[in-house]
Amino acid sequence: MKATVMYGAGDVRVVNVPDATIKKATDAIVRVTRACICGSDLWPYKEMERAETGRRMGHELIGIVEDVGSEVHTVKKGDVVVAPFAISDGTCEFCHEGLQTSCLHGEWWGGSGANANDGGQGEAVRVPLADGTLVVLPVDRDDALMPDLLTLSDVMGTGHHAALSARVGAGKTAVIIGDGAVGLCGVIASKRLGAERIIIMGRHEDRVRLAREFGATDVVSERGDAGIAKIRELTRTLGAHSVLECVGSEASMQTAMRIVRPGGAVGRVGVPHYDGIPESKQNFYDNVIVAGGPAPVRAYIEELLPDVMARRIEPGRVFDRTIGLDEVPAGYRAMDERESIKVLIKP
Amino acid sequence: MKATVMYGAGDVRVVNVPDATIKKATDAIVRVTRACICGSDLWPYKEMERAETGRRMGHELIGIVEDVGSEVHTVKKGDVVVAPFAISDGTCEFCHEGLQTSCLHGEWWGGSGANANDGGQGEAVRVPLADGTLVVLPVDRDDALMPDLLTLSDVMGTGHHAALSARVGAGKTAVIIGDGAVGLCGVIASKRLGAERIIIMGRHEDRVRLAREFGATDVVSERGDAGIAKIRELTRTLGAHSVLECVGSEASMQTAMRIVRPGGAVGRVGVPHYDGIPESKQNFYDNVIVAGGPAPVRAYIEELLPDVMARRIEPGRVFDRTIGLDEVPAGYRAMDERESIKVLIKP
Repeated sequence: MKATVMYGAGDVRVVNVPDATIKKATDAIVRVTRACICGSDLWPYKEMERAETGRRMGHELIGIVEDVGSEVHTVKKGDVVVAPFAISDGTCEFCHEGLQTSCLHGEWWGGSGANANDGGQGEAVRVPLADGTLVVLPVDRDDALMPDLLTLSDVMGTGHHAALSARVGAGKTAVIIGDGAVGLCGVIASKRLGAERIIIMGRHEDRVRLAREFGATDVVSERGDAGIAKIRELTRTLGAHSVLECVGSEASMQTAMRIVRPGGAVGRVGVPHYDGIPESKQNFYDNVIVAGGPAPVRAYIEELLPDVMARRIEPGRVFDRTIGLDEVPAGYRAMDERESIKVLIKP
Repeated sequence: MKATVMYGAGDVRVVNVPDATIKKATDAIVRVTRACICGSDLWPYKEMERAETGRRMGHELIGIVEDVGSEVHTVKKGDVVVAPFAISDGTCEFCHEGLQTSCLHGEWWGGSGANANDGGQGEAVRVPLADGTLVVLPVDRDDALMPDLLTLSDVMGTGHHAALSARVGAGKTAVIIGDGAVGLCGVIASKRLGAERIIIMGRHEDRVRLAREFGATDVVSERGDAGIAKIRELTRTLGAHSVLECVGSEASMQTAMRIVRPGGAVGRVGVPHYDGIPESKQNFYDNVIVAGGPAPVRAYIEELLPDVMARRIEPGRVFDRTIGLDEVPAGYRAMDERESIKVLIKP
């Protein structure tokens, strides 16, 4: 079968790999009908050291169950399913707590070496721990809501996690740092959770326009000190109750820590490219909360799915390009060059 | 009147200062009947640069109202009152949120220079913003519960804040780093909030004995890697749900970040002597929460007072020495040399 493999920075290819097959009784085989490229895939696309064997890519997918192992009970052949970006057993104490990203038997999509799993950016995947991982969707394989449903595998759940971690709530002011797909979903989530004022920090015209349509009340295009000054101006100098850090760079985390209000919270979902949380002494005196991490999107699917089905939220609008599997390298390029917010793949 | 002034590291004296007098209509004058020395007073006692004018000391006090300004309505002459370590107006939006330490018009006890306030370690204090700051106690001036009530001005509220920030709750495992008075109050608070297992990290025999009497189920006397290994052993390698960081050194914060469980929280109340929160990448992947800061003890007095009055908690047991005002320098020395956990002053 064909699948996406990255061999080094800038070198991503669609190549032939062994067919996905059942290896354990808890596995399922899923034929991928929708996948996508994640902002986090761009980190290795920028930085990965060359590796002969390469790394299998993709961790967001919807597909049709083709086969299940003998111990799989919650999905069956023909089901339309969505897979979160974290593979989890659904039975350990962390899964019971709703923190499936810390599942005691958890695995990750893709990767390299002997323990690599299939990646979502391919024709099919073996799904480990299928009962814990997969969620059956109440739709047909080509339902018009597919782009929206696909975001439940990562970005919409991640935006929701950022908002929950930042304690967004009724009447509060939320600032979203980053106008990528996750940041945009953070706007949706903030609106959904009742934020009164939603400020997005971003500078790409098409993205901030979409942010406004999703519910952003203000846009701050300045960065660094100028951006911080602007946020202070918009918040009576007090800062924001909730800051959703959706980038992961040191500069953006520093900004987050400087615009959060006393008693406020920073919800971070951008994979940290910094050592230690860059705080000032004032953050301690202000009782600032720092929370977040990889989103346990598996825990959020049940909560968000009804809003997607009823079209109360439309996170699928973050996809502004649809490609076939062979075009995946061009899709990476388009996202890396900011020509596209997020690329949907129809293998 | 006599009051405590610090002139530099190791140089603390009881000297004559101007009498406390009403300066604003919102002031009250309180004759101090109980005060104490705080672990945080030991930081300047170790580090303060020499200053001719000195710094007025003390931020924990109980006393009798002697006089009130014309705009003071909630306390009157003769009331027995407790003052939290933060002066707050009780009316601003942060006070309404229960974050009196961030009061928009807040002040601090003691200090130096033109804006210095009186300090608690003296015969009397002018209390700014008396209506917001003072809480009337339902006891006589020499009630047997005075030591317990005095802890509501800081250490018991601070231990409670550490526990709340670390999300202590029923069935959880809490680790308290630090066996000072705040750490010991953190044990009381963890027990009170329903923690199933309460592990104190400390090595002073008298303190850990008291911790056990307060409800600690385990004691870890090792530090650094050995201490971390011990905590891992006691928590099935998973780490603790709640870590109460009651020291403030970089080493103790590093320990906190290394013993917290995925999805767990570090509640820090030790004034940070580190730059940036020392986390590992794993803390992000584990969705660890960092919270805490100076405790809004004013918000907690109403909640904790009934438990003190009913003797359900006995935080006053952290005082193991009582002195007069003239003996304050010896009191600092005793706490600095770990001869005393916490010193109570009867001016």
